[in-house]
Amino acid sequence: MRITAGTVADGIREQLFTVGDIPGVLWTPAAGSGPRPLVLIGHGGGQHKKGWEVVSRAFPYVTACGFAVAAIDAPGTGDRPEHPEIRRLVALIDERKAAGEPFGPALPALYETVAAELIPNWQTTLDALQKLDSVGDSQPVGYYGLSAAGESGIRLVAAEPRITAAVLGLMACDWLLDTAARITIPVEYLLQWDDEGNPRDSVMKLFDALGSAEKTLHANPGGHFRIPPFEIDSSIRFFARHLGGAGVPSSS
Amino acid sequence: MRITAGTVADGIREQLFTVGDIPGVLWTPAAGSGPRPLVLIGHGGGQHKKGWEVVSRAFPYVTACGFAVAAIDAPGTGDRPEHPEIRRLVALIDERKAAGEPFGPALPALYETVAAELIPNWQTTLDALQKLDSVGDSQPVGYYGLSAAGESGIRLVAAEPRITAAVLGLMACDWLLDTAARITIPVEYLLQWDDEGNPRDSVMKLFDALGSAEKTLHANPGGHFRIPPFEIDSSIRFFARHLGGAGVPSSS
Repeated sequence: MRITAGTVADGIREQLFTVGDIPGVLWTPAAGSGPRPLVLIGHGGGQHKKGWEVVSRAFPYVTACGFAVAAIDAPGTGDRPEHPEIRRLVALIDERKAAGEPFGPALPALYETVAAELIPNWQTTLDALQKLDSVGDSQPVGYYGLSAAGESGIRLVAAEPRITAAVLGLMACDWLLDTAARITIPVEYLLQWDDEGNPRDSVMKLFDALGSAEKTLHANPGGHFRIPPFEIDSSIRFFARHLGGAGVPSSS
Repeated sequence: MRITAGTVADGIREQLFTVGDIPGVLWTPAAGSGPRPLVLIGHGGGQHKKGWEVVSRAFPYVTACGFAVAAIDAPGTGDRPEHPEIRRLVALIDERKAAGEPFGPALPALYETVAAELIPNWQTTLDALQKLDSVGDSQPVGYYGLSAAGESGIRLVAAEPRITAAVLGLMACDWLLDTAARITIPVEYLLQWDDEGNPRDSVMKLFDALGSAEKTLHANPGGHFRIPPFEIDSSIRFFARHLGGAGVPSSS
C-alpha cells in the first residue's frame, strides 16, 4: 500500500492510497490512534470512491462511531483506467434503456465483469488496510453498499468471512438468490418503494433469500435515489450495535 | 380524571387513573415537572394497559426521552367489565380458528365494535391528560400500537389531529385502506415477515395506502410476536425525532 496524499479537516484524516493498481481512500478520526472497527463502503454505478453517497456515510461513521472507513474505485470508474468491456456493456444497456427494451443478459454480464475484478480488489485492499496501525486485524469489519454496490456487496459478503455486518439493498438481482442464501451475518436492507428500475417484489425476493437470522428490511417511499437522511442514522446504530463504537450521530 | 394510585420506581412515576369508566395508567419521569411530549400506547388483542408489550416501550420512552406515556384498557379487557358483544365475537372467531375456517365478517365486526368505544375513549383520555401539569396541551402527542392496537391506531390517528407521529403495524385490515389514506403524519410501520395471521402482502397494502409523505416500513423475520428488541430503540429515535426529547436509549 502506498499513501499518495493526506489531509485533515473537521476532525477527519483522509488518506488517498493505492494497493497495486487499486485506488482507494481511507478516513479515520484525526485524534486518537490504534486499531478500530472498519467499514468498507461501495459506490453506486457510474460513481466513484469519493461520490456523495460514500462521503455522506463515511464522515458520520468516523465522527460518531470512531470507525475507520475505506472506499475504492470500482473497475472503469474514478481514478482507474477505462475498461473497454465494461464500457461496451454499459453502452449496450444505455441503448436498450433509451429504446425502452429489456436489458437482457447484458445486465448480469456487466455485474459479472465488474465483480470478477472488484471482489478480489476489495479483499486485497482489506489485507492491506488491516496491516495499518490505525485499522489492525483484531477489529470487526462492516460493509455498506446499495444499488450496484449492493450487487457486488452480496457477492463480497458471501465470500469474505472477515465482514461481520452489512447494509445492502436497492437492487433486484435474481441471479444472486443462491449467493444471498449463503450470507448469515446481520444485514440492514434498504428498499425504495417507488424505485423505477428495481421492482419492490424482486428487491424483497433477495431480502427473503438472505440466510441471516438477523435481517431487517427498511422500505421508504420515493425513487431509487431518495433514501431519507434518517436511514444514515439508522445505519450508524446498526454498525455501532454490531461492530462496537459509540454510535451517537451528531444530529441527535 | 381521578388518580387512584401512585408509585415511584426506577426513576418512573406510575399513576393509575380513571376518566369516567375508562381505566388508565400514566408514566412520567419521577424527577422534573412541567409539560412534556406524550405517547399513547395501545395494547394488543386480549392484553391490557400494563401488558409487557406496553411496559417494554413505556419505560424507555420515559427514561430515555423524558416523555409522558399513557395506556388505557380497551373495552372488555383489564380492569373493565365484561363486554358481552365483544366476548361473543371473540368466541366466534376462536371457534372458526380452531376449525381452520376463515373468520368472515366476524373479524371486522369485532374491530368495529371495539373501535366504536375505544376511539372516543382515547380522545376523552387525551382531553383529561392534557389538563395535567405533567403533560399540558402545548406539547406534541404520539401513538404506538401494533396488531389490534394498530387496527384501532389507524382509526384513531386518522380521526385525531393532536397526534403528530405514530408507530403502527402487524395488521392486515383491508377494510382500513381508505382510513389509512387519510393519514398524513409520519409513520414507522412494522411488519413481521413470517406472521401467520397477517400475510405480508396485505400488511404492505395498508402501508402502501398510508397518505403520509414520511412513512418507513421495518420488516423483520419471525412470527407475529417476535419483533426484535432493536425496534424498540428505533421507535425511541422515531419519537425523539418527531416529538422532541433526547432519544438516547440506555442500551446504546
